[in-house]
This record gives sequence, structure tokens and C-alpha cells, in this order.
Amino acid sequence: MALGNDYDRQDCSLARTLELVGERWTLLIVRDAFYGVRRYNEFLAHLDVPRGVLANRLRVLVDAGVLDRRRYSSSPPRHEYTLTPMGEALWPALYALAQWGETYLAPAGARRLFRHVTCGGQVGRAGVCTTCGQPVPPGDLEVWPGPGADATLRDDAVTKALRHPHRLLVPLLSGLDRSDR
Amino acid sequence: MALGNDYDRQDCSLARTLELVGERWTLLIVRDAFYGVRRYNEFLAHLDVPRGVLANRLRVLVDAGVLDRRRYSSSPPRHEYTLTPMGEALWPALYALAQWGETYLAPAGARRLFRHVTCGGQVGRAGVCTTCGQPVPPGDLEVWPGPGADATLRDDAVTKALRHPHRLLVPLLSGLDRSDR
Repeated sequence: MALGNDYDRQDCSLARTLELVGERWTLLIVRDAFYGVRRYNEFLAHLDVPRGVLANRLRVLVDAGVLDRRRYSSSPPRHEYTLTPMGEALWPALYALAQWGETYLAPAGARRLFRHVTCGGQVGRAGVCTTCGQPVPPGDLEVWPGPGADATLRDDAVTKALRHPHRLLVPLLSGLDRSDR
Repeated sequence: MALGNDYDRQDCSLARTLELVGERWTLLIVRDAFYGVRRYNEFLAHLDVPRGVLANRLRVLVDAGVLDRRRYSSSPPRHEYTLTPMGEALWPALYALAQWGETYLAPAGARRLFRHVTCGGQVGRAGVCTTCGQPVPPGDLEVWPGPGADATLRDDAVTKALRHPHRLLVPLLSGLDRSDR
């Protein structure tokens, strides 16, 4: 059944949000951007998304102001994508959705764990550091595989890199550092 | 383009969550359940969702354990739907998505405001009461229209009822009280 992607007659900011990020693949692309994935071929290798869908989703996210796009090579022309402040502000929603899945849809235990880099504490289901009691912004989080992770599912470069602790928003495979932007 | 609704090869609890609640209309149905909408015809009147899609989404949510379904009339057979504890646990994710929309996609101001019933404080973008400083569970929240609400969009019974302050999870139009369950 073909359904559009808008909810014109819903006077609701949840509906507005879902019109932008509710399409299939979009939130997984945003997730990967938090993990430090920046380039088209990296997204493509990590997500089993058709090329045209990936290109469309990246364009929509750039047009909406969620991702920044900048050229890192002119011949051939290549771009990298990083989260804007508006994109980074999606973290609480993304984390809450993921933690609901960890609670109810992860019978073997959490697939990913998060550590508060500045104090070393583990971050709980509500996004609060269990050591210092503070909510942790994404740039201060380190992610690594939890007990429920399945190492047999795939073997692309992004997946391999995420088997080691990695600080969010820092380039995972390639890309200019944030301080260079 | 026809895309399936699973992400088989993503070892990720966000992907598992989106497989269940990421389909078009599903999170708006869950939102309405928080508002106290309980019956098929009420969901139908408030959402411009095709009947078959609504029936499918309700069935998926019941099968997954997000909604409870129970008969309130035997002739004709009619059911009402209420959130299970698993369903109520979606609140932080739903609220975070909606608040992101209020921040970035609500040029006329917030479309809905939330008040902490037990202390009277307004609830901020992070879901914490600005008066008592506590995160507020959905059953202790009252919702009412914000300055960005558009009263001209629709006029169904659910929309009309939501023009007045209403405590979440309490039946909005009809339905047996939670204490009767």
C-alpha cells in the first residue's frame, strides 16, 4: 500500500518530526552520523539501503538543516556529511528509541553500551550518567558493543570499527576533524 | 519505491524499535493512546488513516505487547485499546521526538504544553518539571494547546476534547477507567 509521507491535517509537532525523520532508513542514517560515519560509501557499506534511497535521504536531511554537506574532494566531487546543531539535538529522541529497544527487544542483553567520557560513568536507560548523575550530551559519549551484540551479522568497515570503543561525533573511518570545520 | 519494514542485518536496538513502531501512522496511534483515545472509531476520526492501515497497526501493536485490547461490547463486538507498561515506556521517546519538532518545526510556538499535575509545574523540553526538577511519568502529565496550536485544521471529537486540559492516559471520550481493568 502506497502511503504518503506527510500528516497534513495533524496539528502536532510529533507529526512534523516524523514527516522529516520518520521515513525508512532516515533515523539509521542519523544514528550512523552520531557514530562518526561521514561519507556516502561508508553509509552505503553499513546500511543495506538502495543507493537512490540513501542519496534521497541525505538530500532531505541536508535541505532540512539536519546535516551539513561539504566537499572533501573536487576530482571526483565527493562530500562528507556531519550533523548540524539541529541534527545533534535529535540525540535524546534517538537514544530513547534505542533504549526502549534495549529494554524490550534485546533478549540477549543490550547491543550497545555508552560511557560518559568526562567522568567514566556508564550511561543508563534515561540518558543520565550513573556516576555523576548528569544527562550526557552526545559528544561526551563513548559507545562500545554490549553483551547482546551479534558479531556474526556483518563485517563492513563501519561495523568493524564499532567493535572498539568510539567517541560519538568523532570521525569513525575518515573525515576532517570537527575542529577543522 | 516499495521498501520492506525490517532491518534484518542491523545489529541495533534502534533498528528493532523502528521495525515495530517506525511504520507510518504507528507513533501517532501510540500518541493518541497517551491522550486517552481508546476506540477504533475515535482513532479513525482523529487520524486520516485508511481503515485497513489502522486495523493493521492496532493488530501489530497488540501482538507486540504495546497495546492491550479488550472487548467492551459483545453485540456488536467492539474493543478498546490501552497502553501496556511496555507501551507507556515509549513516552520518553515520543516526547523527545515531539519536543524536537516543537523546537525546530514550530515557527508559531509550541503546539502543545504539558503540566506536572502533582506539583503544577510546566514540563520543559527535556521532560523535566521546571518547578520540582523531576522527570514526569506520562500519567502525571496534563496536556493542553500551546500558542502554536492551529484550531482551524480539524474539528473531530478528539480534536475538540484536546482543546481543554486533559490528563494523559485518562479516557478522553469514552472507555472504562483504568481502575476498572
